[in-house]
Amino acid sequence: MQHKAEVAIVGAGIAGLKAAASLVDLGCSVVVLEANDRVGGRLKASEVAGRVVDVGGQWVGARHTVLLEEARRLGIDTYPQFAKGRTQLQLQGRLTRFTGDVPRMPLLALLEVARLQRLWARDMATVPAAAPWTARNAREWDAMSLESWILDHLHTAGARAFARIVPRGAWAAEAAQVSYLWFLDALRQCEGFGYLMAVEGGMLDAKFMGGMHQIARRLAEELGDRVMLSAPVRRIRQDNAGVVLATDQGEVEARFAIIAAPPGPIASIQFEPHLPALRDGLQQRMPMGLIIKAAVAYPTPFWRVAGFSGQVATDDDVLGIVMDDTQDTGPAILLCFIEGEEALAMSAAVPAERRRRVLASLVRFFGPEAAEPIGYDDNDWTREPWTHGYVGAMPPGVMTRFGAALREPCGRIHWAGTETATEWAGCIEGAMRSGLRAAEEVARRRNQ
Amino acid sequence: MQHKAEVAIVGAGIAGLKAAASLVDLGCSVVVLEANDRVGGRLKASEVAGRVVDVGGQWVGARHTVLLEEARRLGIDTYPQFAKGRTQLQLQGRLTRFTGDVPRMPLLALLEVARLQRLWARDMATVPAAAPWTARNAREWDAMSLESWILDHLHTAGARAFARIVPRGAWAAEAAQVSYLWFLDALRQCEGFGYLMAVEGGMLDAKFMGGMHQIARRLAEELGDRVMLSAPVRRIRQDNAGVVLATDQGEVEARFAIIAAPPGPIASIQFEPHLPALRDGLQQRMPMGLIIKAAVAYPTPFWRVAGFSGQVATDDDVLGIVMDDTQDTGPAILLCFIEGEEALAMSAAVPAERRRRVLASLVRFFGPEAAEPIGYDDNDWTREPWTHGYVGAMPPGVMTRFGAALREPCGRIHWAGTETATEWAGCIEGAMRSGLRAAEEVARRRNQ
Repeated sequence: MQHKAEVAIVGAGIAGLKAAASLVDLGCSVVVLEANDRVGGRLKASEVAGRVVDVGGQWVGARHTVLLEEARRLGIDTYPQFAKGRTQLQLQGRLTRFTGDVPRMPLLALLEVARLQRLWARDMATVPAAAPWTARNAREWDAMSLESWILDHLHTAGARAFARIVPRGAWAAEAAQVSYLWFLDALRQCEGFGYLMAVEGGMLDAKFMGGMHQIARRLAEELGDRVMLSAPVRRIRQDNAGVVLATDQGEVEARFAIIAAPPGPIASIQFEPHLPALRDGLQQRMPMGLIIKAAVAYPTPFWRVAGFSGQVATDDDVLGIVMDDTQDTGPAILLCFIEGEEALAMSAAVPAERRRRVLASLVRFFGPEAAEPIGYDDNDWTREPWTHGYVGAMPPGVMTRFGAALREPCGRIHWAGTETATEWAGCIEGAMRSGLRAAEEVARRRNQ
Repeated sequence: MQHKAEVAIVGAGIAGLKAAASLVDLGCSVVVLEANDRVGGRLKASEVAGRVVDVGGQWVGARHTVLLEEARRLGIDTYPQFAKGRTQLQLQGRLTRFTGDVPRMPLLALLEVARLQRLWARDMATVPAAAPWTARNAREWDAMSLESWILDHLHTAGARAFARIVPRGAWAAEAAQVSYLWFLDALRQCEGFGYLMAVEGGMLDAKFMGGMHQIARRLAEELGDRVMLSAPVRRIRQDNAGVVLATDQGEVEARFAIIAAPPGPIASIQFEPHLPALRDGLQQRMPMGLIIKAAVAYPTPFWRVAGFSGQVATDDDVLGIVMDDTQDTGPAILLCFIEGEEALAMSAAVPAERRRRVLASLVRFFGPEAAEPIGYDDNDWTREPWTHGYVGAMPPGVMTRFGAALREPCGRIHWAGTETATEWAGCIEGAMRSGLRAAEEVARRRNQ
């Protein structure tokens, strides 16, 4: 088969779909090539105890304007994240329970937690959105891991443990694996530590009734047969005349391409001519965070009765983060995030063992009722074809050398995907904005 | 087309060829699938001023027993690396010239250079060959970049600059980009800093008359039509019965596969079922060093007359390393290595500009005669299809989490390539030994 379009878009995740929709609005012909047999990318639906759940991206933050506007247009409502009652924080085997924003910790550790937030906020403020690699201290901060920063700046075991759960909880990456400069930019992308962690009015403000993944499905429905499933792109050739994309379902000819996928997994495509060293080097250096997301259903939110919010954060358990996902009707649900090294170990376990371990942890945090769920499902993103993980993160020495390649077009090829966003990277909002930005870039060239 | 063999080997670099030869010796049927239209992988020939030169791997170390034995068998002679006369070291704009092993530096810096060698030797000695991730301080050392180690342990600008040129010169990776644990293991693989830097009796002891690449070519000739060129493997399916490799030249069925390629570039292959998270994660986290190798030919080795050895090491020039490659007959040649960020910049330049910059640097180090070469050629390894660079290096947090995946077979798939070696990784010797090891693994299973 042979297809033609003005713009070929690789990836029917939310970035690719939004780019396609935006170009179609401008009267441009597009084809969206999706490797999977489903749309959505890192948005994905499952069903647990009769309720549809998101096993991928799910939260919508309070200032995620593009996403909220899209949902409004599609008539998809939000429901707030439940956060009443006690939160549980277990660091290095020590479990504490508290209400409000301030964890219970030894005073010195607590003072250091406050201090680290000030230091991060101060450093973050010097990182320019469009070019983090030009920050005044970019070289110094990019040469060290976040772990090195933690050891240099924090002295209490409590504050160090607290700092380490931030990259795990937010990006499924470990402090030893990410550059301090990348981390600061990732914080900045989410308007800082306070917003990142906040429920009401923050990043965890709300979720979508019927699931976030619907937004991808609905956008794809509107695009109709412009979206081609099970069409992995194996090779992309470009010359002065245009681009030719070789897929398992034939070739597609276009004037321009937008690749809307995480930088790492793009390495599975062969480019002719070879990509510039800067872009190719970036793709080799932005590994995906390790995560398994589980949804566990119960007849009632028994934890609420016991005074728990459902929120847990740990540094020494198979579960890194737990959150309540109960709606007004239907089953009560706890969302469980297995991250980093725990995800590596649990990815190697058989599903029954994973379920057993997750339930055993929930029993420790919420009592014996947690042992009797009415539904369980998990999605191992480390084994997700074409995605290979959660979100791309940069090790030391990458942002300053390769950061400029994130959005820089290579000939007729433009780049989208949440990793390329300048605001809300790592979020669905960032994915959408990146799709709009790439569509604008192409639209501008199309009219030249 | 449909092919069958007991073992399918992916990659006709020296590791894959050696594995194939070893299996053929055991009476095993093999097919070697090479993506390129040439064999050799990171061994590659070119011609400059009528002489064949290696634009890829070239040196044979004094204890590279497998490689030396292979060359003896094939009747390929060595010639010693020339090293008489003054070496030039330019750090942070300050050029010094010296004979012997001890660079000219301010006394304090020199004392620190001696001290850093003791510290590296001490730490290196605690890193076990088979499992660097089990070293007593593995977690601590893997959590920091080599650059963080340098800033923590060295105080003079001279010693810091000297330390930073080691990973660039040896693995084309920057101190900010590699884990201190990985660096220690890389040093250990090469028997330590002294051996790594040494000419006579060391890593730079000798080169092969007619070129190192011949060894690959000759091994391939012996394998005959078992080697299939221009056959990139796109997908590998495995089940209890065997493996099926889908290439651009049809499918190959085998009982086992050996993938003899650097971990990073393997990510271009789609595996069914998905690779385990540990292996897939490794492949996302071992980027290839950035290097361009140039050979510049002159009628005579005029630098020798001026008392220079031809050896240069710099931290602030387009050339990172220069070495003499003159033989008894034929043109005099200087080999020039452009590494790290300089390789990124020069890869983006047009070839004429690259040549101009290389010659301008050679003039600075060796005088005006360097401006008039009788031949020039370079190979940009960052744009080399299927290889994408020099040698895989690990950023912080990778060795301790993913190191165990380097050699661990995944079902019927075994791994070879210099990065998987436990001795001489990064060298051709390591590649050969890795091929032998993988062949042994498969031979053992074949007889079970």
